[in-house]
Amino acid sequence: MRSLDLNADLGESFGRWRLGDDEALLGVVSSANVACGFHAGDPATLVATCRKAVENGVAIGAQVGYRDLAGFGRRFIDVTPDDLYADVLYQISALDGIARTVGGRVSYVKPHGALYNAVVHHEAQAAAVARAVADHPAELVLLGLPGSAALRAAEERQIPVAREFFADRAYDNDATLVDRRLAGAVLTDPDAVVRRVQQLLGSGTVATVDGNDVAIDFDSICVHGDTPGAVAMAQAVRAALEGAGATVAPFAP
Amino acid sequence: MRSLDLNADLGESFGRWRLGDDEALLGVVSSANVACGFHAGDPATLVATCRKAVENGVAIGAQVGYRDLAGFGRRFIDVTPDDLYADVLYQISALDGIARTVGGRVSYVKPHGALYNAVVHHEAQAAAVARAVADHPAELVLLGLPGSAALRAAEERQIPVAREFFADRAYDNDATLVDRRLAGAVLTDPDAVVRRVQQLLGSGTVATVDGNDVAIDFDSICVHGDTPGAVAMAQAVRAALEGAGATVAPFAP
Amino acid sequence: MRSLDLNADLGESFGRWRLGDDEALLGVVSSANVACGFHAGDPATLVATCRKAVENGVAIGAQVGYRDLAGFGRRFIDVTPDDLYADVLYQISALDGIARTVGGRVSYVKPHGALYNAVVHHEAQAAAVARAVADHPAELVLLGLPGSAALRAAEERQIPVAREFFADRAYDNDATLVDRRLAGAVLTDPDAVVRRVQQLLGSGTVATVDGNDVAIDFDSICVHGDTPGAVAMAQAVRAALEGAGATVAPFAP
Amino acid sequence: MRSLDLNADLGESFGRWRLGDDEALLGVVSSANVACGFHAGDPATLVATCRKAVENGVAIGAQVGYRDLAGFGRRFIDVTPDDLYADVLYQISALDGIARTVGGRVSYVKPHGALYNAVVHHEAQAAAVARAVADHPAELVLLGLPGSAALRAAEERQIPVAREFFADRAYDNDATLVDRRLAGAVLTDPDAVVRRVQQLLGSGTVATVDGNDVAIDFDSICVHGDTPGAVAMAQAVRAALEGAGATVAPFAP
Repeated sequence: MRSLDLNADLGESFGRWRLGDDEALLGVVSSANVACGFHAGDPATLVATCRKAVENGVAIGAQVGYRDLAGFGRRFIDVTPDDLYADVLYQISALDGIARTVGGRVSYVKPHGALYNAVVHHEAQAAAVARAVADHPAELVLLGLPGSAALRAAEERQIPVAREFFADRAYDNDATLVDRRLAGAVLTDPDAVVRRVQQLLGSGTVATVDGNDVAIDFDSICVHGDTPGAVAMAQAVRAALEGAGATVAPFAP
Repeated sequence: MRSLDLNADLGESFGRWRLGDDEALLGVVSSANVACGFHAGDPATLVATCRKAVENGVAIGAQVGYRDLAGFGRRFIDVTPDDLYADVLYQISALDGIARTVGGRVSYVKPHGALYNAVVHHEAQAAAVARAVADHPAELVLLGLPGSAALRAAEERQIPVAREFFADRAYDNDATLVDRRLAGAVLTDPDAVVRRVQQLLGSGTVATVDGNDVAIDFDSICVHGDTPGAVAMAQAVRAALEGAGATVAPFAP
Repeated sequence: MRSLDLNADLGESFGRWRLGDDEALLGVVSSANVACGFHAGDPATLVATCRKAVENGVAIGAQVGYRDLAGFGRRFIDVTPDDLYADVLYQISALDGIARTVGGRVSYVKPHGALYNAVVHHEAQAAAVARAVADHPAELVLLGLPGSAALRAAEERQIPVAREFFADRAYDNDATLVDRRLAGAVLTDPDAVVRRVQQLLGSGTVATVDGNDVAIDFDSICVHGDTPGAVAMAQAVRAALEGAGATVAPFAP
Repeated sequence: MRSLDLNADLGESFGRWRLGDDEALLGVVSSANVACGFHAGDPATLVATCRKAVENGVAIGAQVGYRDLAGFGRRFIDVTPDDLYADVLYQISALDGIARTVGGRVSYVKPHGALYNAVVHHEAQAAAVARAVADHPAELVLLGLPGSAALRAAEERQIPVAREFFADRAYDNDATLVDRRLAGAVLTDPDAVVRRVQQLLGSGTVATVDGNDVAIDFDSICVHGDTPGAVAMAQAVRAALEGAGATVAPFAP
């Protein structure tokens, strides 16, 4: 019986501002990418999210990002590698200490937003992230886009990596994501998303915006946590995985 | 041969803004209270400060404070206990992960500025700090003012505590510190400071602003790190300790 | 025909985090207390909110607060009077420049959250706020609680003041607000709120938590903008005012 | 008698962290680029700096930057044009209100750090800055690099512009600045800087890193405010200007 992972972004509230239904999503996903305070996530939210994740047996990942609350980490920042290294180390550490306090631990790292996109191509920032993941004393997996500079940098440092498939994002012919600023980049119809997941499980491919089928290697399936209908979408994807005979469980050891 | 600890605040720079001569002070003190990013201390500074502390065999303490960069943590904030608990846990965790990455660890916690003053009397905030120190998985000592609510709260939770003497601060008759906004509250003459330390080592007392001698129990001596002449002052105090036959070494295990 | 003002807090979103239905509320209230960026309100939100307020003929007030995004300005901060003066001046100025850019102007100032509560009693902070309002070149009214230190300080400086009644908050016998952390402090039933407004218009009194009727002097009625049902509540209060023969219009010139 | 302007960055302290000798520099320069709080400059510093500038007859410019205290505005951020527009408008407004409160006003705008460099080439960000300067109700001049996209965008909007020469920066053959990360990019020898200024006044040219002389059009000469020796350097440049028979006075009306 095949084991598959389902991940989503969580812990993205900040003080008075609440975002996403973390409580419900933690009953659906197997891995939670928890914001670490630089682009979202106040400490009390991190404590509550980690506690609930531990209760539900959900793996905790550090959703590291640029220091940019006003931009929610969605704007590229030309940080020097040494500063980015320290920023990532700080974020992983803050979340890991909180996770261990409530009986869990951080088992993987997933860059967020503009940093996620940057480390697909930006070799210096990718290397800085990989170096932080490698140097941190916790045993960590780096989760990212297949073929990205970040995953290559991690492999060079012997860090285990995990590749993800985005259930609700449109793909280009080179198996990269369509820019989310373009129309149709984000899929909102659960039925369409479920069909994509079924195709992926059946043939290992995804239909691109041009109608071609391209092969996708993956270790985890990502669903969005902060969109309207996020919980229903995640439940539909989980049902599709289980309907195909898979067990939903964390990829990280 | 008696072993005595000398502590100072370090790692208080933030980005372009530099504060204190950390490099020099890390050659003098035995314990470094390293800022954790909420009131001072950017991640790259924390990495560099921890690395240097480890090289020099200096113990690393988490200098936790209110989330207040603009106020440098020197303004009381009426944070709820649950938020303060999470804020302190986050800060300890961020520094501890960085310290362990460079081969060290956080061995104690010292509240900073207005939080230090608040937890002398503010029972709810004192309890929140003590709870965070107790819950964090690292073995931590809480460093604070003798007789403070924070140390009492820590003892109730079986957390080891350490009491500090301020070499360069004036004392009232009840063995508390003179408000630093009052004239004469901070001593700047190294000779006068050295004489106080010598009196403390000789008789276990300090002369108050009224000229009385009051008994002081202490496990560590604090010198300021961010004043002009801080390095010379720290060196003078260290020389006084060694001149009295003591070894300068961390109080924390 | 009597003219009455209805005010609400607006512009309290921050980046990705949205709060309140500003668009709808700006069709109901006559005065908008617009957050200025220190506890809420990013610049793009301020521009959009001011533009819409001008289109709707709604008066713009500066909702000034402590520098505390994480606490949404709801935590007392022991800021020095000089720093608070500068912080308030900065916030008024930022909003006023934006308002004038889109064809409006800031016509009044209303402290927010913990600052609002502090300046009821805290003479030094009240004086600092009044001094900033007095010194700023715009002609400004200070909106606050009847009998508060802030309004007294304003009157001493010859600044015009406006007093507000809270339609959906419980009152104590001394005509102050019941602490919002206590049960029943915030009223959520529109019918009950409407009846209070009708009593106020009819007899100039409000029923306290103990069942007494106390007299209330007021120039503006405040409704909350960020609660579920805020728009419906504001509409109900406005209908009550108009049903009693009043015109809803800004108090500020 | 020729009138020439001398500008420097001021007001770049933040809370406990002090930077530059503003008091002394305000006795030397004729135009002060005052930080506005996004990358540096707390409100109390802005008030004090504007007050002193007014006393000394120094023109006040808004030194606008990215929202990036940790990076001091020296890191490019890929802000959307609409957000950048609002951010710049907010910063100009905050400083202008403070300046007018103390009897002055903002008369020009100078982008800072990475934003300064970005708007040399980045058309969308340059247009956003120019749009904010144009829309703000104050009469403002945009100060920038000759030939930059920002100055072109300003001219298209009929905003007056001013071009600056950097007295202590090395130039490439195309009259742009040598990247400050390269050795020799910043000149620290006052004699060499004075000779460059004398050459500029005499022949309207500057010697490039390759030894060529290229023509420079300028309305203001910039000296750095935050380097060791900044005051002496500024005094030397001012003496050179006056020695050549020029009057040092603001370029802005």
